[in-house]
Parts: sequence; structure tokens; C-alpha cells
Amino acid sequence: MTRDPLAGPSAPRRVAVVGGGIIGLSIAAELSRRGADVTVYDPAPGGTDGAWHVAAGMLAPGGESAFEYPHLTRLLEVGYELWPEFVAALGDVGYDRTGTLSPALTADDVAEAAREWKHQKLKPLTGSQVRDLEPAISPRVRAGAYAAAEHQADPRKIVAALRAALADRLVAEHVSDLSRVDADVIVVAAGCGTAALTGLPIRPVKGQVLRLRGEPGLLRHVIDGTADGRHVYLVPRADGEIVVGATQEERADRMPTAGGVHDLLRAALDLVPGLAEHELTEVTVGHRPGTPDNAPILGFLDDDRRVVVAAGHFRNGVLLAPITARLIADLVLTGSADPILDAFAPGRFR
Amino acid sequence: MTRDPLAGPSAPRRVAVVGGGIIGLSIAAELSRRGADVTVYDPAPGGTDGAWHVAAGMLAPGGESAFEYPHLTRLLEVGYELWPEFVAALGDVGYDRTGTLSPALTADDVAEAAREWKHQKLKPLTGSQVRDLEPAISPRVRAGAYAAAEHQADPRKIVAALRAALADRLVAEHVSDLSRVDADVIVVAAGCGTAALTGLPIRPVKGQVLRLRGEPGLLRHVIDGTADGRHVYLVPRADGEIVVGATQEERADRMPTAGGVHDLLRAALDLVPGLAEHELTEVTVGHRPGTPDNAPILGFLDDDRRVVVAAGHFRNGVLLAPITARLIADLVLTGSADPILDAFAPGRFR
Repeated sequence: MTRDPLAGPSAPRRVAVVGGGIIGLSIAAELSRRGADVTVYDPAPGGTDGAWHVAAGMLAPGGESAFEYPHLTRLLEVGYELWPEFVAALGDVGYDRTGTLSPALTADDVAEAAREWKHQKLKPLTGSQVRDLEPAISPRVRAGAYAAAEHQADPRKIVAALRAALADRLVAEHVSDLSRVDADVIVVAAGCGTAALTGLPIRPVKGQVLRLRGEPGLLRHVIDGTADGRHVYLVPRADGEIVVGATQEERADRMPTAGGVHDLLRAALDLVPGLAEHELTEVTVGHRPGTPDNAPILGFLDDDRRVVVAAGHFRNGVLLAPITARLIADLVLTGSADPILDAFAPGRFR
Repeated sequence: MTRDPLAGPSAPRRVAVVGGGIIGLSIAAELSRRGADVTVYDPAPGGTDGAWHVAAGMLAPGGESAFEYPHLTRLLEVGYELWPEFVAALGDVGYDRTGTLSPALTADDVAEAAREWKHQKLKPLTGSQVRDLEPAISPRVRAGAYAAAEHQADPRKIVAALRAALADRLVAEHVSDLSRVDADVIVVAAGCGTAALTGLPIRPVKGQVLRLRGEPGLLRHVIDGTADGRHVYLVPRADGEIVVGATQEERADRMPTAGGVHDLLRAALDLVPGLAEHELTEVTVGHRPGTPDNAPILGFLDDDRRVVVAAGHFRNGVLLAPITARLIADLVLTGSADPILDAFAPGRFR
């Protein structure tokens, strides 16, 4: 007999999470911590297909939200505050709070970036000031800004830690029909795959990302800059890896392209010429799960409250993983939604 | 008892070829065809470590020899003439005689290319004439030239065909000491590895090469051009693959670098913008076996005439494979050297 999901704080017990990416795993870990009986279904629970495998892991609430869905800004800010606690439970996941530098190469790049700096209330820096903070920045860079609050973490390490913590809860199974999942509540956190499971309008937005490797120490900060109109970010890990991203293309294929790789390398080398001798170790393609307003879809799918959706995080899946986990766990375990979720309900696309 | 290698046309019978790259295999095939008992030693006779795996397979005797060792020009020209016969014995190895177009992007590129065109007696073409021959060439290209005699073949297909023909003669063994090889005559065709075996001055010259893939037909010709001072070649295969090469670096590592890949893509896209949407399928690194004069080393290593060297082909290993096979087989089977070999004797570096 199926329990009533609203029967009280001890119910429901049996929760199926469909999707073992960073969102699904974070939710499962939170539910598990709070005593639920969680099972995570993923076709390849040890695989590398998720957007998290490609993502750089920039934690930049301001940078991603400036001109987007207004409710998203608030969610990003609240979610950002949860990171220290989230990371403390995971161990070393490359969480780094050195901050982000945003160099702008040409006068045109500076003019465009200045709008963003103003919006974020960041003080513009001269080229010399940028190079004082980060000596590897090209002498051609005209200006920049420093965002102390924009941090990073390594999504691959986060997923590895979550997988280890949930090892006995992971089931290698592709779910294609929610009605056949045996659980009190089902959380659909299947990224782009959520569209086929729920009918919700989630589309893949292709991103090409490179990984370079060299002696650690060339870069201290996350670099999030613009060079001749090309936007690029460079996320340096402690071990000498530098993640370079990302294209943003409205297409679903998995092909790295000559043009995409070129544009990333060109902008990266324009901003940090010393990267030329770095090894190119990976060229990867991922897909951000985008929605019509590019804000996530969080909440009960239907009035029967058996299916919860947590998907469509677009470019913010890493940053929003802890807040998504907390809000969805609340919803699953108490049946009542935090008011912050109102703006993200699946119903807005029905 | 070891046979006298000079005893007559039927001797020597037992020939060891050390190195199963395009040179070693071509020599072995020629010796085998002429009745010798050949064994090819290679640490990985099915592997992809050789320079042939990276090489584009441009057959351009003029283009490679213009300002190099003068005797090499003659060897390249003679070797070039052997290709139709060489290919006829191998089957489909992508041998294509459409010819090569050399676009030059800027006025500076044109000025530099003009020296080469004059040397090769090629008629300069206007940008429009270049695009009439090859519509995918950028409208920014100022001038060019067409070399009808510069062809291509696919080194990977050649090696596959030679391996198949010699399948029962290939031994998976790394030879580190020639004195322990049991044969009447040993041919050392070990590319860069020849240095350690013989003490000859052969050095690795690193080359980074990309492979793109798209709908066949974007390019008709081999493109061998210059864009903003960056030299690049684009070799289109019938199946839609386009080989993009190559950096030339005096170093032995096997790392593709951000700078190398960027420079190739930038020059390729400057000349053929339509490549931007092509898939980037491979980034490979190979090593040309260079010599002090960058001409090959061909001939008996010592007066005892037991060891023949056929190595150091630098950028010309594919083009020179047929002529090397013929001349070295003559040397091994008759003991007397064709006069064309005099300029390539190992003794010039002693």
C-alpha cells in the first residue's frame, strides 16, 4: 500500500531520484541525510555524460544572473550562501574563494563589460591594476574588474564525493516511464532528459569546453573575460589544470567543432598569452538544460504530488545544487513548498 | 653460417628490417617482391606511433625542397615519378592527383609566397581566380597559385595495405641491439629511433596535426597556404576528412598545445571559413626524423656492409617511401649503390 505523501514528517520514506547528475545526487544526499529511503536511477551511474563533467564550476551568482529572469537572481544569491556548508560535508572538492578577475581586452570589450561591472557594483581596474593582481594577463588588456565573491569548485570532484557517499543507493537503470517507478515520491532530475519524461520544455544548449594543463601557478584567479568580443572563462585548478569555456549553441549534437575550439583558444590566448605552451588535454561537449526563461523548473509536476521536478538549471546547475537539494528535500519530506519556489513551478510552462 | 652478402644476385636471402613505419614496410615489401626472406621488427606492428599516422600525405616535391639540401630536390623528383606504380600495387590508398592550391591571405603573405611560386615556376592567380578553382576559399584571400603536380595519398591507408601484404613477416619485437639480430643484412628504418641504434644524428621534430570531418566536397584541392604569416595545409580526403597541419617544433614531447592547435585552426579558418562547423575529430602529435641537413640517411652504416640505414626522411617520408624502397632493395640485393645515394650516405655525419 502506498503511503500518503502528506501523512506527516516521517513520510514519505521511499524516494526515487531519476538522474544521477550533480542535481540528482545532491538531492539524494540531502534526502538520505534526513532519513529518507532514497534510490538514484541513472543509466550510467559511473559515467561522464552529465553536464557536470564538462562544467567548469564557477560559482558566480552575479555574473550569471545580471540580465536574466529576476527571480533567479534571488535564488542564485540564496544558493550561493549554502556553499561553505555543502562543501564541508564533501571533503576536498576544489572549493576556492580566491575570486574572479574579469579582464577586457579592447576598448569595445571594456565598454561592454562596464555595463556588467556597474550592475554588479564592481570597481573598474586599469590594465596595470589587473596585471598586479594576475601577472599572466596580457599587456594588451585595457581594463578589468575583480569580483571577490565569485568562487569555484570542481564539479567532477563533487560528483565523485556524492557518488561515494551514495554508493549503495545508485541503480544502473534507464527510466523511460515514471509510472513504472516503485516509490512514494519520484524526483525527476534528469537534466535534458527531463523533457522526454515529463513533457516539460527543456532543451539542450551545447557547450564546448577545453581543458589545458601546465605547471600550477600561472593563474591565481578565475578569469572571466572578453577579448575582441569573444567571451571566455579560465578556471585554474590547484593541480595545474585550467578549464576553458564555453561556447553556447542552440543545438544538440556532441561534436567539438573547429570554430568552437578556435574561438575559445583565441580568446584564452589573447587574455593569457602564456597558455600557448600548455598542453591541450581535453576537448569536451556538454549540454546545459535550458528552459524558455532559462530558469530552473522546481516543484510538483501535477496535483497528485507524486512527481517532483528539479531540472532545467541551464548554466547554473553547479551553483544551484545545494539550494535545489535543500528546497526539494523540504518539498518531498513536508509536502509544502518554500515561497521562493513559486516562481520556478512547472506550471508556468503549462 | 652467414652468407657473404656480396656473393651474387641470389644472396643475401635473410633480411631484417628494423622499424615497421612507412619506410620500413615499403622496403620490406619491395625486398619481398624480389624474393628476399624478410622479417620486419617493430615493437607494435599494429600500432599508431609512427610519423605516418600523423602525416597528411602531401606529395609535393617542389614545395618541400625549394630551399633545402640541393641533392634532395633530385631525389624528391625521381621519387615522385614512382608513385603511380607504387600505388597500383597497393589498391585504394587515397591517391589523388587533383593538385594543390596555395592561397596567400594578406599582401605580406603574397609577397613571401611569390618567391616560392617563382622558384617553382607557378603562375600567380588573383583571389578571384583562386576562388573559381576552389569556391570555399575566403573572399579575403588576395592571391594564390595552382600546382597541378602536387598530389596526395593517405599514409594510414598505405601502411594498412603494406601491413596486410606483409602480415606473416611482422614480428612484435623491440630491437635495441643490432648485433643480436639474426640476419644476413639488417635495414634500420626506425625513424627517430635510428639514433639510438646507430649513433647517427637523427632528432625528433615535433608536429601537431588536426583532423576535421564534415560533408565531403567542401574542398576539391589540397590547400597549402599562408594566413597572416601562419603556414597551414589542408588535405581533403574523399570521405570528408580534412587533415590540417602542421606545427614544426624542435622538441620531443608528445603534447598537443593550446598555442599549436590555435595557430592551425586560425590559419585554416582564415583561409576556409566554412571549416568552422566541421567536427574536430583528432589532435595528434608526431615527430619527423630530422638530420643535420634534413635530408635522409641512406646507405651502408659501416664498411662491413651488414647494416643499411634508411632513416631521417624528415618531412618527406611519405613521398620518398617508393624511391627509398627501390634504392635500398637494390643496395641490399646487389651490394652496389646507385650514384644518387652518394649524397645521402651515413658517412657525411661521421
